[in-house]
Amino acid sequence: MNSNHFSSLFNVRYPIIQAPMAGASTPEMAAAVANAGGLGSLAAAYSTPAQIAEMVARMRQLTDRPFNVNLFAIEFPPAPDDVSAALALMAPFYQELGIGKPERPSAGPTFEEQTRVLLELDIPIFSFTFGVPSPTILQAFKAKGTKIIGTATTVAEGKILEAAGVNAIVAQGSEAGAHRGTFNHPFEQAMVSTMALVPQLVRSVSLPIIASGGIMDGKGIRAALELGAAAVQLGTAFLVCPESSIPECYKKAVLNATDDSTQITRAFSGRPARGIRNRFMLEGEAHPEVILAFPWQNNLTRPMRNAAAKANNPEMLSLWAGQAASLARPLKAADLLRTLVNEAGW
Amino acid sequence: MNSNHFSSLFNVRYPIIQAPMAGASTPEMAAAVANAGGLGSLAAAYSTPAQIAEMVARMRQLTDRPFNVNLFAIEFPPAPDDVSAALALMAPFYQELGIGKPERPSAGPTFEEQTRVLLELDIPIFSFTFGVPSPTILQAFKAKGTKIIGTATTVAEGKILEAAGVNAIVAQGSEAGAHRGTFNHPFEQAMVSTMALVPQLVRSVSLPIIASGGIMDGKGIRAALELGAAAVQLGTAFLVCPESSIPECYKKAVLNATDDSTQITRAFSGRPARGIRNRFMLEGEAHPEVILAFPWQNNLTRPMRNAAAKANNPEMLSLWAGQAASLARPLKAADLLRTLVNEAGW
Repeated sequence: MNSNHFSSLFNVRYPIIQAPMAGASTPEMAAAVANAGGLGSLAAAYSTPAQIAEMVARMRQLTDRPFNVNLFAIEFPPAPDDVSAALALMAPFYQELGIGKPERPSAGPTFEEQTRVLLELDIPIFSFTFGVPSPTILQAFKAKGTKIIGTATTVAEGKILEAAGVNAIVAQGSEAGAHRGTFNHPFEQAMVSTMALVPQLVRSVSLPIIASGGIMDGKGIRAALELGAAAVQLGTAFLVCPESSIPECYKKAVLNATDDSTQITRAFSGRPARGIRNRFMLEGEAHPEVILAFPWQNNLTRPMRNAAAKANNPEMLSLWAGQAASLARPLKAADLLRTLVNEAGW
Repeated sequence: MNSNHFSSLFNVRYPIIQAPMAGASTPEMAAAVANAGGLGSLAAAYSTPAQIAEMVARMRQLTDRPFNVNLFAIEFPPAPDDVSAALALMAPFYQELGIGKPERPSAGPTFEEQTRVLLELDIPIFSFTFGVPSPTILQAFKAKGTKIIGTATTVAEGKILEAAGVNAIVAQGSEAGAHRGTFNHPFEQAMVSTMALVPQLVRSVSLPIIASGGIMDGKGIRAALELGAAAVQLGTAFLVCPESSIPECYKKAVLNATDDSTQITRAFSGRPARGIRNRFMLEGEAHPEVILAFPWQNNLTRPMRNAAAKANNPEMLSLWAGQAASLARPLKAADLLRTLVNEAGW
């Protein structure tokens, strides 16, 4: 399954995917990538059905190229009984930002209602992480002609996705920024690097493998293709584009990162995710027992993260980034895509 | 610093290093690699000066090509006061193997006495990990014309090694098998993958970078060179060669491994190292507070590991291996090297 196969299957010119990044990627970013010949992604995991419809409509105004919409394929665990310790952890941060007192978090939009609107919207490509949707949902997308991309962090997960009938698999290496997609293992046992994961997945499943994690430039793209990947997905590389919606302090943190700046944390969202160390991460890591499960922790910390973003304060927002963040270049999304294409030698 | 530069600097035909693997690599393995045009390595870290002299003499009988001798560049911490809990952890394993009762461990040979004999032996290449030798020692090797290779797990460590005057740097990715070389960070903060580490090191230091971690075949070699590495170092790939001194049960564990079979543990040696999960590892991980510091823990567990190897019991020996172990091929070392050269396209 080589890159030509990938490009023709997904109807894109270059096998480069701009990763969906909730809170960072925008329809403007995705459309710029799509119009330049890559595959742009919309991150819809935290969005209500109405917001998703708006996002997709905006995308369709900006491009007539195929695009991808990403969701978190999970059922929420029951609401936590006692959130007092979690609220106590947050209180000083809320106070410091002048946003009152933290409140018991709500659940937010469910995967089921999100997929319902996506099915109505007839999107060209649907991708997911954190699990595997039900056969009913996958079948409904297929019946619409929607192509499907799942996310694996191990060979075992890749085989599960292949059996479920996806069209391609993102191999998420341990170096990747943001949430771990792991769904079949304790996450610590599924920290397999891109260099180790991609060739083992390529050998074990017969679908196109999309390498992600640590890829920032043409060198990384060529390396991933040498390992047998049919395509690449880059997130951190696009974080610092002007089309990215993250605050300036976050972009600065990415550009100033070193290879040892990031770690995996549950502090912000309740699910393991890689970000640049900052004050809130270290505070949360020091009190792992009070961190709620996803999505409760994520919704609990959202007012803090939003206020910190507004205040351009990098110590209280999630600075998701991969281990090669220092190689990011603050180019326009279309220019970055063209640069990657040139560097890759296409 | 490309691979031609590396090859001419170290006087080898192909920029492929067989990694030093204490307890696994042998002069026979290293000589087979050297005679086939690669760089063979002797692992001397656990050896007495007399054993080192013997090993080097054997190597010189088997090849006239350059070779590398590797040590652990550390000073031992003081002997532990109370080892009773550590002995109690070991006792049932000793009993099960019928080797009596565990005893307070000794320190073993020191880096200082090991370097003294290496200096007398006039070796062509000296490599080290776990730290940086003193300027006096490095200067003494240089005065002999010995080329020097250090090990970095982060860019910061690479800069320290460059300032110390080494000739090349092994970039040890997080996926690599066996001991982490980390010396400038808590090891958890230095788990940078090969894909992320190599290009950032290449950009930050002006020495040849030797990629290691996750590289098992020609695809991995080409990927590493695309990332800017001048050479590659493979350990796990050589573990299953007939010249490897590990027991059959260990080779079988490597060949049967999956991408999620390994984890980092201090249980066997007191220093973080990646190996295939087994009973002793999990037992030690469940009692981290009783694990002694290196080298005390390593010497405490040695009788168990030796007896387990003799009994071909994979549950009580350290099954060091990298995350791509499943790609290992049980070829003779020379055949493996020739296969790698062919696959790499040289």
